[in-house]
Amino acid sequence: MSAAHHHLSVHDLSAPPEPPNRYLFGPGPSMVHPRVYQALSKPIVGHLDPYFIQVMHEVQELLKIAFGSGGGSTLVISGTGSAGMEAAVANFVEPAAKLAVFANGYFSDRLTEMARRQGAEIVRLEKAWGQTFADDEASEFIRREKPKVVAYVHAETSTGALQSGRAICAAAHEAGSLVIADCVTSLGGLPVEFDQTGIDVAYSCTQKGLSCPPGLSPMALSERAMAWLRARTAPARSWYLDLKLIHDYSTVSHRYHHTAPISMFYALREALLMISEEGIENRWERHRSCHQVFVREIEGVGLRMHVSSAHRIPTLNTVLVPGGVDEGRVRKRLLEGPGIEIAGGFGPLAGKIFRIGVMGPLATEDNLQFFLAEFNKALRAEGYSI
Amino acid sequence: MSAAHHHLSVHDLSAPPEPPNRYLFGPGPSMVHPRVYQALSKPIVGHLDPYFIQVMHEVQELLKIAFGSGGGSTLVISGTGSAGMEAAVANFVEPAAKLAVFANGYFSDRLTEMARRQGAEIVRLEKAWGQTFADDEASEFIRREKPKVVAYVHAETSTGALQSGRAICAAAHEAGSLVIADCVTSLGGLPVEFDQTGIDVAYSCTQKGLSCPPGLSPMALSERAMAWLRARTAPARSWYLDLKLIHDYSTVSHRYHHTAPISMFYALREALLMISEEGIENRWERHRSCHQVFVREIEGVGLRMHVSSAHRIPTLNTVLVPGGVDEGRVRKRLLEGPGIEIAGGFGPLAGKIFRIGVMGPLATEDNLQFFLAEFNKALRAEGYSI
Repeated sequence: MSAAHHHLSVHDLSAPPEPPNRYLFGPGPSMVHPRVYQALSKPIVGHLDPYFIQVMHEVQELLKIAFGSGGGSTLVISGTGSAGMEAAVANFVEPAAKLAVFANGYFSDRLTEMARRQGAEIVRLEKAWGQTFADDEASEFIRREKPKVVAYVHAETSTGALQSGRAICAAAHEAGSLVIADCVTSLGGLPVEFDQTGIDVAYSCTQKGLSCPPGLSPMALSERAMAWLRARTAPARSWYLDLKLIHDYSTVSHRYHHTAPISMFYALREALLMISEEGIENRWERHRSCHQVFVREIEGVGLRMHVSSAHRIPTLNTVLVPGGVDEGRVRKRLLEGPGIEIAGGFGPLAGKIFRIGVMGPLATEDNLQFFLAEFNKALRAEGYSI
Repeated sequence: MSAAHHHLSVHDLSAPPEPPNRYLFGPGPSMVHPRVYQALSKPIVGHLDPYFIQVMHEVQELLKIAFGSGGGSTLVISGTGSAGMEAAVANFVEPAAKLAVFANGYFSDRLTEMARRQGAEIVRLEKAWGQTFADDEASEFIRREKPKVVAYVHAETSTGALQSGRAICAAAHEAGSLVIADCVTSLGGLPVEFDQTGIDVAYSCTQKGLSCPPGLSPMALSERAMAWLRARTAPARSWYLDLKLIHDYSTVSHRYHHTAPISMFYALREALLMISEEGIENRWERHRSCHQVFVREIEGVGLRMHVSSAHRIPTLNTVLVPGGVDEGRVRKRLLEGPGIEIAGGFGPLAGKIFRIGVMGPLATEDNLQFFLAEFNKALRAEGYSI
């Protein structure tokens, strides 16, 4: 047996079976409610089982509440949020098609890179990481470029900036363009308003605002996007992410496409049911109110937010690292002490910001005060005088 | 709020929270052990958390036992087995490259379709579904075609046929070709012998032979495949499945690529630990011995296997539907009565075969006898006289 020289036993492995206790105050993954873990561990059925088809349909219906989408379709990609991004690009940005990207952070760069690999012609309107696009400059860009497809990031995880999509969508539709919106960090935590905004293709993730473990990517498609999809003649370069096939499996014929991650769907359904029980508007308000407290308290100890007040993501706060403080040491201290995870910046924001998510089960007054006390303690220990 | 007309409550939803009790005797997903469900529901940590990195490394080491791979790399794709197939094709079959496919079932057709979408030049050696390729015809095909890449399906889920890879790999290496092997149905249930066979790129799934819920795709890459990957200049068309980036995140720099499905990794580690505790050779033997009993008993009631005895997948039995019996009705009866899932054939085998998996926790004498009794009962109820 070729396996003979590989005999490992449990004892050779160093990671204990019980994960360490973590408070996930980073940009994601976010904290998961015990009810969701319980659903995750229910016995699986087959991916073509009538019960699973029912669960999948329920997930699609419940997603419409979170997206704020009525017509069109919702479906779920069997991959993480990045797979949703690639599905959006691979299905709607055909080779040689002109794509206009609003570029103001890491995820618009990632989308650009994916589109480049699909052979698109790309034009970008660029801003510094943390800034957003005003209505008139967004419209002007689209009118000038007349792209086939427009893409923007609703809530930019790398910077903390929230981009309104109204003017972008209006100008895009006037120009006959389709709009892709990255809603990875917004879905479930703040209004996406898919229909009202006029988005055609939105993708998200199960972690962050939905407070489910990572692994799936929910998508919403407008009637218009569905018509584009049906009209597409050349097949998408990706078979795994082919939305025609996935839509057919998910909602029409239920003909086998791939073996869906059953357990993850159980968890996603439970997370969406919890949102529906809380009421999506109440949930948004809970996050918004925690955000206001967060900013007030942070500014109260002399710290400053990276993004201007009108354009902040309520679930993901970016705080400027005060002079003289090593942000990596603060993060390490929080992780190794109270077990709190937060993130730093990267790219042009490396070393310059903390990224602090207050989402899902952690978005309560008590949890927030616990976090702020530990954060201030860690900052003081690293030389910041409060 | 655009969500206002979507107020669903728990009571509007029709699928009960508790899944029905199913015995998964189909080709997959397979039955999952309670220990694996328990691991699945452990609290998550971040995808860059030192604990998670450790778990990921352990998974990679444990996978080497199952694959029978020493050098090279093992890694895990954040998608199902089909994502692993697409990763293999997207990274190793460059546009315009010649790919030789051994085509004898649905999954070699799927791989062909993926390669077509990647712009490959494809040549196929075709056989009826259920047949396999003899050493000399395999070698002759490769010598004649001199392809850049060769692909075959080790255990063809749609037919029950097991294809030896020795002659294919030997001829391919002589011709300077790289070999991709689909091991979706073989890994964990029977020897893959990655190194001994000479496979360069293998992909699999977490369900079936590993008895973990579906959602991830383990891969093994030979040293040769790693060298190809490093030498590739044009980036893969897929960013999500870019193995250079995934390898870097998984094993080298741990630089962020995507948010890994943490919970699924916990489950996969537990499933692999259980395999390591049982001993992989013991596990293979357990499956092989159940297969022998299965065939004996099935033939004992006058039924016949679809695949010739030398080329059967021990974990997935394909049984010819006896004349006069409607296979769909038998399956429905089994699902709605004792809750047993088995599958039928599709494509050219639609209506002609039953596909019956005896894998993981169900591969014991007791479970097998339970299955056979119910299967015979259902056949009798549908008019077959035993």
